[in-house]
Parts: sequence; C-alpha cells; structure tokens
Amino acid sequence: MQLFASQDVKFIFLIRLLLIQIDHFGFLENGTFKQRYLLNDQHWHKEGGPILFYTGNEGDISWFCNNTGFMWDVAEELGAMLVFAEHRYYGESMPFGEESYSNAKYLNYLTSEQALADFAVLIKALKTTLPGAQKSSVIAIGGSYGGMLAAWLRMKYPSAVVGALAASAPIWQFIVPCGEFYKVVTHDFTISGTNCSSNIRRSWAAIDRVSASGEGLQWLSQEFGLCSSLKTPDEVYGFKAWLQETWVNLAMVDYPYEANFLQPLPAWPVKVVCKNLHFDTGVSDKQLLNGISLAVKVYYNYTGDAVCLNTSQTATGNLGLLGWYYQSCTEMVMPMCTDGIIDMFEPQPWNFQAFSDECYNQFGVRPREDWAEIVYGGRNISAHSNIIFSNGNLDPWMSGGVTTSLSESLVAIMIDGGAHHLDLRYSNEFDPESVIKTRALEVRYFKQWLNQAATTQ
Amino acid sequence: MQLFASQDVKFIFLIRLLLIQIDHFGFLENGTFKQRYLLNDQHWHKEGGPILFYTGNEGDISWFCNNTGFMWDVAEELGAMLVFAEHRYYGESMPFGEESYSNAKYLNYLTSEQALADFAVLIKALKTTLPGAQKSSVIAIGGSYGGMLAAWLRMKYPSAVVGALAASAPIWQFIVPCGEFYKVVTHDFTISGTNCSSNIRRSWAAIDRVSASGEGLQWLSQEFGLCSSLKTPDEVYGFKAWLQETWVNLAMVDYPYEANFLQPLPAWPVKVVCKNLHFDTGVSDKQLLNGISLAVKVYYNYTGDAVCLNTSQTATGNLGLLGWYYQSCTEMVMPMCTDGIIDMFEPQPWNFQAFSDECYNQFGVRPREDWAEIVYGGRNISAHSNIIFSNGNLDPWMSGGVTTSLSESLVAIMIDGGAHHLDLRYSNEFDPESVIKTRALEVRYFKQWLNQAATTQ
Repeated sequence: MQLFASQDVKFIFLIRLLLIQIDHFGFLENGTFKQRYLLNDQHWHKEGGPILFYTGNEGDISWFCNNTGFMWDVAEELGAMLVFAEHRYYGESMPFGEESYSNAKYLNYLTSEQALADFAVLIKALKTTLPGAQKSSVIAIGGSYGGMLAAWLRMKYPSAVVGALAASAPIWQFIVPCGEFYKVVTHDFTISGTNCSSNIRRSWAAIDRVSASGEGLQWLSQEFGLCSSLKTPDEVYGFKAWLQETWVNLAMVDYPYEANFLQPLPAWPVKVVCKNLHFDTGVSDKQLLNGISLAVKVYYNYTGDAVCLNTSQTATGNLGLLGWYYQSCTEMVMPMCTDGIIDMFEPQPWNFQAFSDECYNQFGVRPREDWAEIVYGGRNISAHSNIIFSNGNLDPWMSGGVTTSLSESLVAIMIDGGAHHLDLRYSNEFDPESVIKTRALEVRYFKQWLNQAATTQ
Repeated sequence: MQLFASQDVKFIFLIRLLLIQIDHFGFLENGTFKQRYLLNDQHWHKEGGPILFYTGNEGDISWFCNNTGFMWDVAEELGAMLVFAEHRYYGESMPFGEESYSNAKYLNYLTSEQALADFAVLIKALKTTLPGAQKSSVIAIGGSYGGMLAAWLRMKYPSAVVGALAASAPIWQFIVPCGEFYKVVTHDFTISGTNCSSNIRRSWAAIDRVSASGEGLQWLSQEFGLCSSLKTPDEVYGFKAWLQETWVNLAMVDYPYEANFLQPLPAWPVKVVCKNLHFDTGVSDKQLLNGISLAVKVYYNYTGDAVCLNTSQTATGNLGLLGWYYQSCTEMVMPMCTDGIIDMFEPQPWNFQAFSDECYNQFGVRPREDWAEIVYGGRNISAHSNIIFSNGNLDPWMSGGVTTSLSESLVAIMIDGGAHHLDLRYSNEFDPESVIKTRALEVRYFKQWLNQAATTQ
C-alpha cells in the first residue's frame, strides 16, 4: 500500500491490491494474482455512506481515475468512498506478470466475464474488510467499455451493486448495422465546417493519386512530417488507416474545452480541424492534402512539441491496445464497415471470416460472433433495473448505445453537444448546459437507488 | 434424431443434439460437444406458443423427463412445446466422451455457469432454427439442483427466459446454518411415528456396541442381509453413513402415493418405516437393530426382489453421483453438520478443511467456499423477477430454499405435506390439496409472465 498523488494533485488515493483467482469459472487453474485498485475515503460517511465503484476498462486505472473527475466532484455531496478497480490484464493487474501476453494459454483468462467476477469479489472483500462498509451500497460507474462493464455488473451481479452509470457504453455495438459508427463520425465533421467531411472523403483518392509516384510519396511524407517516410503500397494503406483512426479519435474527444484525454487538444477540436478543410471542389490534390496535413497536426501537435508524426500510434499509451485487440478477437466482436456514401471513408465491407483469420494468426483464437449477444442479452434487457445509459450525440459510440429509455429504471440520457463520456469528466466552466443537467440527473438517480436500498435492507 | 418412448409410454419425444462450446468462458479450448435434449411439440401452438424448458440437473435427462409429469400435464393447456435439456457431464452429454471423468483437465468445464450458458445457447438455437419459435417465450422449470439452475437462468439470462419455476431449489444451502438440513430430516421421522426419530438416534450407539465383537458384526451383516459382510471398523463407519443417507433419501421421497423416484416405495414411506421403530427405551440393542433393518428394507426391498442390500448404493443409478461430488468439491459447497440433539444423527461438525483435502485427493481441486454466494447473490436477490420458489415442508432441502416471498414477482410457495419437488410430478389421485393448489398457482404465474412478455414485445 502506498500513497499516490494524481497527476493534477487535486486528490490523493491509496493504492491497494487484492489477491484474486485467475480463473473464476474453472478449478484446475487455482492460481491467484494481485488486482490493483485505488481508494479514497476522505469524504466517506462511515456506517452507510455509499461506495462509488469505477469498473476499470482497457487501460491503466490511474489514467481512468484522473479522467473521471465526476466521481471526485460528487464524492462530498454523497458522502461516498471512491474505488477505482483495475481491469485484469491492463495497467499493473497482470495475472501472469510480464508473461501475461506471451501466449494464448496465459491470455485465456482475459474476458469480460472474468473481469466482472473480479469486481464482484472485490466488492465483497471491501464490504467484509473495511470497517463500516458492511452496510454501504455500491454504485458502479464506468465509461466506454468500462461503462459496458458497469451495466453488465448490475445485470449479472445485482446483489453487488444497487445501480450503474454506464456512460457512452455501446452495449449494442455487437448487433447494430456495421455502418452506424462511421456515420456518426462523418456527421460530426459535416456539422463542424463547410465541406469538411466531403474533403476528407475526397482525400483518399487524392492520396492514392499522389502516392502513385516516388516523388509523390516523398512529398506526402514531408508534408505530413512523418517520422518514417512512406515507401510501399502497404505503408500507404497503413497511412490511410492511421488517418481514419485519427478522424475517429477526434470525433470521440470533441470536447467543448481544452483537454488531454487521448491527446492534448484545443476546445472543439473537430471545428479547429475543419478550419483547414473548407475547400471547394476545384482544389488540387496537393492543396487538399496540405489541408489534411494541417488538420491532423491539430490532433498530433497541438502543443507544438512533436518533432515528427508517428503513424504507428494514434492515442495515449495508457490504453492497452493489444489486450483490447484480443478481447475483440474473442467476445467483443463489433462489426464495423464503411461505404463512402453515408460516411466519408473508403468503402470497406465487414468481413467476419477475414477478421477471424487475422485473430487466429495473431492470437491462436477465433472470435465467437453471437456470444456477447447471448451472454449479455442483446436488446432484450428490460428485466434489469437501475441503470443509466448516458450518451453524447457527437460520440461515434452512441451508435451502439442505449439512447432511449427502456423502463422507469433503465434510463437513457442524451447529452446534446457531448462527445465520449463527457459527463464523467471534471466539471468545467465551458460545460454545455446539457452535461450540467445530465450530471445533476445522474446524482438524483444515485440518491434514489441509495434510498431504495436503504428501505429494503 | 430418433424417436424414443418414455418409460410409461404416455408421451413420445424427439431426441436431439446441439453442438455446443466446451468452454464458454475462454477461447483457447475451442472444441465442441453434443448436448442432448428431448423435445415434444404435440401440443405446441406455433407462432407464439410458449416453450417449457427443463433445466437438466445431475443425471440422465430421460429420467428427469419421466419424473417431471407436471410439464406433460400442463402442456396442452398452455399450448406449450416441452424441451428437456441435459446437463453437461451427465447422461449422454459428455464433453470429452468416455474420457470426460478421467482427469482434472477434462472435468474443468463441469460448472453451473457453463451449464447455464449451454441452456442460453440452446434456447437461442431453438428460437433461431425452429420455424415459429422466434416469438415463443421460454419458461425455465427445474427441481432440486435443476431448480437452482432454473432460478439462476432467469437471474443471469433474463433475456432467454421470461420466468422460472424453481421447485425444491436450495439456492441458499451454501449459507444457511449447517445443521438445518438434518433437522428437517429428523422432524419428518419424529412426526411419522411414535419414538421413530429417537430410536434412530439410539441406533448408532447400538451399532457400535454390537459391532464391537466378531459375532456381532456377523449378526449385523446377516440381520440386514448385506451383500458383503462387515469386517472392519471402517466398514462399520461406511454402514452407518449408508444408513444415514437412507433416512435422508426417505425424507426426500416421502410422497403420498406409491412412487419410484430414487427407489420403488409405498405411499408415505417414512410412516411405513416408522411402524418398525416404535419401541420404548427398554428395548435391547439387537431388538432395536432388528427394527432398523426392517425399516431400511422398506426402502431397499419394497418390491421384494432384492437378494441382498448393497451398502455402496442408496439411490437410482440415473443420478451422476461422481459428477455431483465434483461439483460440491468446486462451487456447490453446502455445509452440513449434525449434533445428535436437534437431529437424530451422530454428532459430526462441518469441517471445511477436511472436506477440501478430500476433494483435493479425489479430484486435484479445492472447493471455493464463498464463490456460490458471490456469483448467485446470496440472500440479496430482490433485484430479480418472475421466479417461483416452491418447497415441500417435508423436504430436507427446504432448509436451503426460499420459503417466504421476496417481492411480488419472487414468490415462495410452501406445499404442506410435500416432499422433494412433489409439484413437478404427474398429478395423482392421492395428491394432497396443497399440491393441487400449488400447481394451479404455478400455471397462473406462467400465464401472467407470458402475458407480460406478449405486451412488452
């Protein structure tokens, strides 16, 4: 146990470890590992004060802790303890230490079901071992995949948590039409500047034409300030994939103020990007691509510190990309496709078989297309209760989210002008009215759940 | 697929097989096995008629099918399809064929969670592949461990089943005081004849005294007509354990009419047994044990066909005892103890460590004491809905059952004069009023759930 000051030095938490089963669902592997969790009880009302429990997702938990200011903002009002639980196989919670990613056998316990069981076991342990916590009600909170886990924790272990806030949680991404996600990305660019999305749509062919010659390749590499020059068609393909992911990330973090989630960015970054992309159709390929290059530098070099652009990375190193790739190669199968018409990307159909083959080559496992729908209920989740699904209408992930309420206690909140789980961030003077109201409503539901639990205990 | 006539030739069902994942919760083991299920659709109203889905427990599914007459009795009224799904590792549903029980590695997928996932996958497959079943609501029905699975299927996969009848399902046996079970057994004998339980309580010391000499051992073996004579103290210990299990089984199957569930038995078998045990305290050891011997023969030789009594078996061979022992050695840890005061057995405290060591010696695995409570919620299950918990007040397993309603839709029904899941049996002219009313109420709830589902679809 050691003290740790969060990056913004606003709050202090304890780092703790719980010994936990590597395999909850079988008994042959009886080993344990140390799961990390962060804990702050400065505002906690002992003997009954609630526990706000962050269901960690695919990354280092201290990074999520620092990017979930909402929990810190409401702790005092609720007299709540804060717990941030790290997801197995991410950050420092490695079931097989440094070998955890070394082979398919060790990776076998990286599933959402195991992670949910970890959380349920941790909650039981907290209630059993923390003096005063026996009667504390627990509320699960998470964003993105962590939001899916928060919702699923309430669905699968309702004895552990009285309710869940699932922020920007695309629990239906497995079953919605594959083009929905990129349609939202495109819409964000369309509304953020004249001709913005149509110029991005045109840029792919321009890249192809320019990169057809050696001189063009060189020009492209210089124009974008790439760390490593483009040489082969494969590299051009990778360059385009990197651009595509950049636009996606920008849509996700289109926050109304300066922020540093995936990258340091200005307020409303998509608008800033689009300022470079208002050309009319008469523009030359190189002019267009010069605009694209200025646009991506908004994302990769807002601070002005970047020496060159590295096409092998698009976001913070705090995310566990390999782990998430494994998870999408097993149960988190989210079909994605583009057609270049309803979206601004090159046409790319969803090809499950090709995806499955890739997964098999990389990890020796094959994805199970229907499993997530069966285990988590698909659209038929009305038997559950006390879950808030919040989504921002700018966030591409809202395409797989629950955006209309399903019952009195399965509530959808849409945040107008909100990007990826804006509601989970620290309050900010530039917050739009919509997110201020959303947070207030979320706290109201928390109180309602806590009262409900108090009266039925 | 083949036709199969059930033993009483009342009904005919199809035997089918579904290819199913051996491991639902990991992706390294990607093998499949053939799960067996029985299907009857003679009364099914296509396009919306419900499916009554028996969640198979620890035995051959055709045996459960024949002992769950209730489903056959109500199929016509409900226009229902009947499905009886076999539990993996029992009957013919063997994940690794004849090798399934050969080692800890193959046994690793024998868990309730895997079985529940099998059922959810099968239900999805039925709805997808049977013409007309797409809109059919499914109701889970099970008794004993199968009843626990029915309740858990509704809890964990409410998108798969609209409700569950959990008959004699001791979902709290993991957490109730260890003496409760044998207290109920004893009570059954106490109310079934004068001095009955007190004479059984006295019999243990009488056995010890008589078996102290070689002549006594021989007398005991002859008196009970044992197939294999008692010789060592270990064998006497085993003999007493066999007697204890016999009394337990009798309490479980104390039905109001002649029946053959665990053994062929007369109506109210505990009363018949107790007719041999009304002695006063003045009786000699051998007289007492003669009474005990006549009493157990009611259980083992009601037909008069038994040549000798085999102390290595107490019930039908249709039950998968080894599999159940493995399950109790992993997650189904049900603490049991006796004290000889509130019950009629020799004092035997619950010793988890000794039990764990036994499990390790036999299977190479150790039980996890708290897991069942964490994964299935313990007493805190009020967030769930649409489950009937029925229990008979003669059934020892009611000690771990839900015997008072927890909400409007988590309903407990107590069956006065009912033994182990009496309500699931065929209706019988000797049925007490209590079970007739119970079954009518159960059907009323079924209809309510089906209407509910029809209006929310």
